[in-house]
Amino acid sequence: MSRPLIVQKYGGTSVGTLERIENVANRIVKARKTDVDIVVVVSAMAGETDKLLKMARSLSPNPTRREIDLLLSSGERISAALLALALQARNIPALSMTGRQIGLQTDNTHTRARIQNIDAKRARKMLDENHVIVVAGFQGINPEGDVTTLGRGGSDTSAVALAVALGAEQCEIYTDVDGVYTTDPRIVPQARRLDVVSYDEMLEMASLGAKVLQIRCVEFAHKYQMPLIVKSSFTEGDKGTLICEEDPNMEQPVVSGIMCDKNQAKITLKEVPDQPGIAANIFEALATASISVDMIIQNTSEQGHTDLSFTLAREELEEAMVIMNKVAKKIHAAQVSSDAKIAKISIVGAGMRSHSGVAAQIFKTLSANNINILMISTSEIKVSCIVEQKHSKLAVTTLHEAFELSKSIVKKKTPTKTKKK
Amino acid sequence: MSRPLIVQKYGGTSVGTLERIENVANRIVKARKTDVDIVVVVSAMAGETDKLLKMARSLSPNPTRREIDLLLSSGERISAALLALALQARNIPALSMTGRQIGLQTDNTHTRARIQNIDAKRARKMLDENHVIVVAGFQGINPEGDVTTLGRGGSDTSAVALAVALGAEQCEIYTDVDGVYTTDPRIVPQARRLDVVSYDEMLEMASLGAKVLQIRCVEFAHKYQMPLIVKSSFTEGDKGTLICEEDPNMEQPVVSGIMCDKNQAKITLKEVPDQPGIAANIFEALATASISVDMIIQNTSEQGHTDLSFTLAREELEEAMVIMNKVAKKIHAAQVSSDAKIAKISIVGAGMRSHSGVAAQIFKTLSANNINILMISTSEIKVSCIVEQKHSKLAVTTLHEAFELSKSIVKKKTPTKTKKK
Repeated sequence: MSRPLIVQKYGGTSVGTLERIENVANRIVKARKTDVDIVVVVSAMAGETDKLLKMARSLSPNPTRREIDLLLSSGERISAALLALALQARNIPALSMTGRQIGLQTDNTHTRARIQNIDAKRARKMLDENHVIVVAGFQGINPEGDVTTLGRGGSDTSAVALAVALGAEQCEIYTDVDGVYTTDPRIVPQARRLDVVSYDEMLEMASLGAKVLQIRCVEFAHKYQMPLIVKSSFTEGDKGTLICEEDPNMEQPVVSGIMCDKNQAKITLKEVPDQPGIAANIFEALATASISVDMIIQNTSEQGHTDLSFTLAREELEEAMVIMNKVAKKIHAAQVSSDAKIAKISIVGAGMRSHSGVAAQIFKTLSANNINILMISTSEIKVSCIVEQKHSKLAVTTLHEAFELSKSIVKKKTPTKTKKK
Repeated sequence: MSRPLIVQKYGGTSVGTLERIENVANRIVKARKTDVDIVVVVSAMAGETDKLLKMARSLSPNPTRREIDLLLSSGERISAALLALALQARNIPALSMTGRQIGLQTDNTHTRARIQNIDAKRARKMLDENHVIVVAGFQGINPEGDVTTLGRGGSDTSAVALAVALGAEQCEIYTDVDGVYTTDPRIVPQARRLDVVSYDEMLEMASLGAKVLQIRCVEFAHKYQMPLIVKSSFTEGDKGTLICEEDPNMEQPVVSGIMCDKNQAKITLKEVPDQPGIAANIFEALATASISVDMIIQNTSEQGHTDLSFTLAREELEEAMVIMNKVAKKIHAAQVSSDAKIAKISIVGAGMRSHSGVAAQIFKTLSANNINILMISTSEIKVSCIVEQKHSKLAVTTLHEAFELSKSIVKKKTPTKTKKK
């Protein structure tokens, strides 16, 4: 019988210097004393990926994705070899493994490949021979034998996929923050680290810009019910935040977290003829340019005309305006305007499902503070409002207070792990 | 019918900066205009390998060779991807390939693996599809699928092996010097670049410390009769030096080059009992410590005793002296002494085979300049003398003059290529 297995993933800042690599090695030595098998997934040393990308861009204005993948994958290979060496120096039988060696097979989509399969035979054998395996994250191999990478946050996805393939107890994500917070502590000092977050909540938070975990990694963990733990690699003894399936038997807090995304912009088309196919015209033109639209609002029609607003990422505003000005002419809209000084405030909580009145509470709180809501969208466990950017800090602070997020609530005891596999 | 194929190898200084990578790309663009297929083999950017090694050593006093191989192989992968990008930016359909992708299979000896086989199917296909292939040199893959490296100068060996496997016309080695010289131009300003050198001569020169090419690369080229050309990547229009089979029909110069190796030391054991097995005792002790001995001289025996001297690389002198002092006690030798202020002057020339009197000319020249010869060894195409280090420059200069090496001699017209395969 093999021992329980833990997958640990260390991000770029956690392995950013030789000293930090030594710290990570010391952590692993300690973890191994608890008689578990350990697979470690590492990112490239902080700054390395950007350095390589910069070199590539200076040589080619439009670098091909295949070459970028070979280039970038070097960073994680270097970290993996270095950490394996640091472990060996501590008498831990460690082995570095590349994406290919660990059997991580992907599709052909260079720079954002999807994992197709993990052939974990060799990894299993190495673990049974008592090795700690140090895996170069972020990378795999496509059917042609070329190196692929998994896109931003890909090492997290590597870690969860390996945890699933090897039947790990849990997947620990070590980073430079000590968990998932009710909101950004830099904005609201009363922000509180959450002990437990459900996959659904974490997915909403990740898609709303919480950078601690990437959406794909959480989706993967959710699909295979792999408990995720987010912890800091710079502190000792922290519990971190557990991300797992919500337990319907436990009391749910109504709201778990508040996100604020200032990287938003709004485009408004005035007096758009209210005819079938017009909206398609607008959004197809944006889709063709690979511009993602977030919230859409259409006012009630007046005399055959309607106003249409939508939000998008601010860095795409300029390109989108060029397209919209063309579209506006074509569909005979009266005017196109934009606003980059907005922010999206989102309230996430699995408990919303069973509690009505969350939206009302939000509107009441914002209105009491004279904050005007420009747009609203809701999902089962989320309410998002667009407000003027100058109001964003006040909005987050007062909502955090209104939903009593700084007060700790015991939610769950231990993760319940029931694999769907 | 496929076009003629050229393999070009660029060393670390030739790809040492982004600007130099661009220069290399421009060279390849030009070479391709002559309607040839091109495979490029690159080293890591200058300094990269040392930087990685230094990191490894700071983490582990005795880093394992397997991890070192994964670590170091990253350097060449980065260069290969960057050069491929620079070529693509010049509208050349370029593809980077790792050692594994190019099919370079090695044995299991990490950090100094030997090439076992090259499965060039994919490379052949890519060439037939009109690609320039940019190969990460220095690396291959062992039967277990782990990355191996070929040791110092391994990229040269990769290049020659690929040239042989793909049936190239020739293998061009681009470096920071413009060819092979009669002697070190920093010592003798009259030193002349050789147009042609035979494999045998080049092997002697390489083993005597000429750094321009590694022994294994020349051995490989010799075995498969692959013409090698050494050229500078920093100048245009140079012919470089051609290394090929000597043509017995052509006039041979007696001497092709003079090498001077100051990295030498001498150990002398005085009054060694002249009994069978004593020499074995001495040299086995050194071999056990992996210390290579170069020249050995045993004086004629006097009254049952003999003096024994040998030379070795200076960096191994200290360790060898510790061993020799032990051995001397055991075999009852009277005294052990050492001399690190020596130099080995070697005269190499395929023409020596058919010309007697080369040694005599050397002795006469050195004697005329009051240079004492401490030790001598000869091979079919080489004479080496140990002299006091303070005489080394004078020895090289006067011998260079005595053998008229600064005068150009037309040796051969074109390489005759007869494959043994």
